[in-house]
Amino acid sequence: MKKTTFLTPQDAEAAFYDALQRADLEAMMEVWSADEEVSCIHPGGARLTGYEQVRENWAQIFKSGQRLQVHLSDQVIVSGMMSSVHSLHENIVLRGEPGGTPRVVVTTNVYMRSASGWRMVLHHASHAPAPVVRRDAPLEAPKVLH
Amino acid sequence: MKKTTFLTPQDAEAAFYDALQRADLEAMMEVWSADEEVSCIHPGGARLTGYEQVRENWAQIFKSGQRLQVHLSDQVIVSGMMSSVHSLHENIVLRGEPGGTPRVVVTTNVYMRSASGWRMVLHHASHAPAPVVRRDAPLEAPKVLH
Repeated sequence: MKKTTFLTPQDAEAAFYDALQRADLEAMMEVWSADEEVSCIHPGGARLTGYEQVRENWAQIFKSGQRLQVHLSDQVIVSGMMSSVHSLHENIVLRGEPGGTPRVVVTTNVYMRSASGWRMVLHHASHAPAPVVRRDAPLEAPKVLH
Repeated sequence: MKKTTFLTPQDAEAAFYDALQRADLEAMMEVWSADEEVSCIHPGGARLTGYEQVRENWAQIFKSGQRLQVHLSDQVIVSGMMSSVHSLHENIVLRGEPGGTPRVVVTTNVYMRSASGWRMVLHHASHAPAPVVRRDAPLEAPKVLH
């Protein structure tokens, strides 16, 4: 049984990253839909499918003791009445290395509305190419308008 | 203006991979929602945002002359009335290298229903970890049931 009702996909997303940073398994799994069809892909990782597999994996990650700080940027959202698709960049630093260059992860989060509020059904994260090149801002030559 | 009405997300997905394999830019862009908020992430690539940027990128890819054959597997779908979230594996071989081991790409495709049928709003593809394990058809050894 879910204890928390997320009234918006943004609430669910905030709870996801809060749980991630605090390494709080119960809070993390409150965000996920308790469904066979949920998917979770970590950067460079194989796809995990189903609530139980996703839960086990987060348990392992949090047990490792590594603590992350995540700053979100570049959010692009496509949303409807019942679903919300969030594309964003996670800028991640290990806690204890505050001066380090953030690793940038390109992430898709999808939320669906249920009778008990919004839940995550998919998290797909993959490494951004290094260095992060914005295609609209070429590095080699100044932009020529034509 | 879109010419094709995809009546189901599966129709849109079939058209996406058909266009990808035939390197047909117009057919590919029929599948995409003509929206500022669409996102496309290729394996190892930076996020592309907006219909025009996505179009330009597919044009470049198709111009390269490389032709792919894509076999889909392990589909997991979460769908509602207005959206459909597809997680799957793309098993990709270069055309002309039919004996090669497929590269496996973990992919999220999201479709939204519009007045003119279903359109893709997000494609997020990332490399699966190696060694590649295909659940439905191991290539190296005959399947042993146990």
